[in-house]
Amino acid sequence: MLSFTEAIHDGWGQVFRVDRLVHYEKTEHQELVVFDNASFGRVLALDGIVQLTERDHHVYHEMIAHVPILAHGAVREVLVIGGGDGGVLREALRHEDVRVTLVEIDARVIETARTHLPFVSAGAFDHPLAEIVVGDGLAYVRDTDRRYDVIVVDSTDPVGPAAALFGEGFYRDCARCLVPGGVLVTQAGVPFFQGDQVAAAQALLGSLFEHATLYLASVPTYTGGPIALGFASNADLVPGDVRTIASRARATGLATRYWAPDVHVGAFALPPEVRRLVGAGRAWAETDDQQ
Amino acid sequence: MLSFTEAIHDGWGQVFRVDRLVHYEKTEHQELVVFDNASFGRVLALDGIVQLTERDHHVYHEMIAHVPILAHGAVREVLVIGGGDGGVLREALRHEDVRVTLVEIDARVIETARTHLPFVSAGAFDHPLAEIVVGDGLAYVRDTDRRYDVIVVDSTDPVGPAAALFGEGFYRDCARCLVPGGVLVTQAGVPFFQGDQVAAAQALLGSLFEHATLYLASVPTYTGGPIALGFASNADLVPGDVRTIASRARATGLATRYWAPDVHVGAFALPPEVRRLVGAGRAWAETDDQQ
Repeated sequence: MLSFTEAIHDGWGQVFRVDRLVHYEKTEHQELVVFDNASFGRVLALDGIVQLTERDHHVYHEMIAHVPILAHGAVREVLVIGGGDGGVLREALRHEDVRVTLVEIDARVIETARTHLPFVSAGAFDHPLAEIVVGDGLAYVRDTDRRYDVIVVDSTDPVGPAAALFGEGFYRDCARCLVPGGVLVTQAGVPFFQGDQVAAAQALLGSLFEHATLYLASVPTYTGGPIALGFASNADLVPGDVRTIASRARATGLATRYWAPDVHVGAFALPPEVRRLVGAGRAWAETDDQQ
Repeated sequence: MLSFTEAIHDGWGQVFRVDRLVHYEKTEHQELVVFDNASFGRVLALDGIVQLTERDHHVYHEMIAHVPILAHGAVREVLVIGGGDGGVLREALRHEDVRVTLVEIDARVIETARTHLPFVSAGAFDHPLAEIVVGDGLAYVRDTDRRYDVIVVDSTDPVGPAAALFGEGFYRDCARCLVPGGVLVTQAGVPFFQGDQVAAAQALLGSLFEHATLYLASVPTYTGGPIALGFASNADLVPGDVRTIASRARATGLATRYWAPDVHVGAFALPPEVRRLVGAGRAWAETDDQQ
């Protein structure tokens, strides 16, 4: 029996039965595997780490795209770093008049996703408001003169090609590429397993932006409890008001499976053990007077 | 290498390296295993399903105990069905003047937890306000004349000895054992994997109580996204107000790692695909006018 074991934590992992191996390749940048599994449908893994599955990718893509766009409220230009599967691209383009630039380092991820995981992008790569750049996201934000309302860093974990996407230089360049009041959102890792990494990235964001916090989304195959997404801006946009968020979503006709206005606001309610990683370091009992 | 594989879903599971097998036993009711693992510390499994680990059990125990007690606001008598590890008992007893009756069918679970997982109960079994009953929870709620403010059903999954704890007769008896305005909370399963089971149990609760909903908690080793907890009452207690909840918690001097007033309220914000299971069947766009 062929199986795929994700074993990135000490003595613990998730194991998928590979019901059908769809694609296997060592690209210029990483090992790329696509397979089918009875419980999760089609699965994409890079360098031994699950990137998405057919059954649960909507959780991640809805939350990483809709939260910054609807928290901001008037987004026209979105930059996606990574995200070669096309999932963030698709969700962002569901907002009317939003233009998206996607910068993915590995063309083979895009090509494989278009061929073997077309349900993720659902045609978004060919959308008239999508611009696809195959290149290094680090260099892109260092060199571009363009400015964005929202930047989404949809990276793999900070090993291999994505490591630099968790560093100060990259974040500083992202800050430079944002219009005033723009939002940077990052894949920040799983607090339960990667608390030190989450805290380090938050400290950097906190030094570059007036507001930097985390919000949480529970993606079944991102194991170890909810994944944290970094949210940084010079504007004070979160947690936001349920009615305002709902009204913006209704105006754009958004239908979702995981995201909802109260889920959006609730995602910023952090357990004390996660809030600690943001750097405020205060327990709920101490902050209650401001609530 | 000895390993423990939890394989309750089709073609997918979590695997722990058993760094040390601490205890193995076939009790009168089930297979009981205790082992140590590098990532999760000490682990308790019953009939092949992880019940708790040293590193993440606080999430479940805080959320299943504090949410009903603080949503209610004046709890004196709590009944726990199952929960032989002592974790719910411990959390409930942190509320001043709360008396807890715990009814566990398998004495070996209690004895093993006291011996090998003492950090879970932390002395709660010997608390003067704890009453421990070794017996069948189904029979207990059928026969008792006592009345409770909160009933917590801390069961295993609905296979083996716990199956009847998801049925109408049991829920009806629980409703009878609650004082007016009391709260029934249940371990409802993981919506991603067990949607049909969650929906069936919610339909029963909805037929017996004026208010029945779910709330969510993300426990790393309860895999497949957040676990749902059923919340049923004839009083309208949820989602509640952050300030009121905070004030009640502060009065009782509660210090927590996962639970917080905004986490409490946010846990009732259900993704549309989960809200569907509650039976209301309305998406956020349709319910927004009531928000």
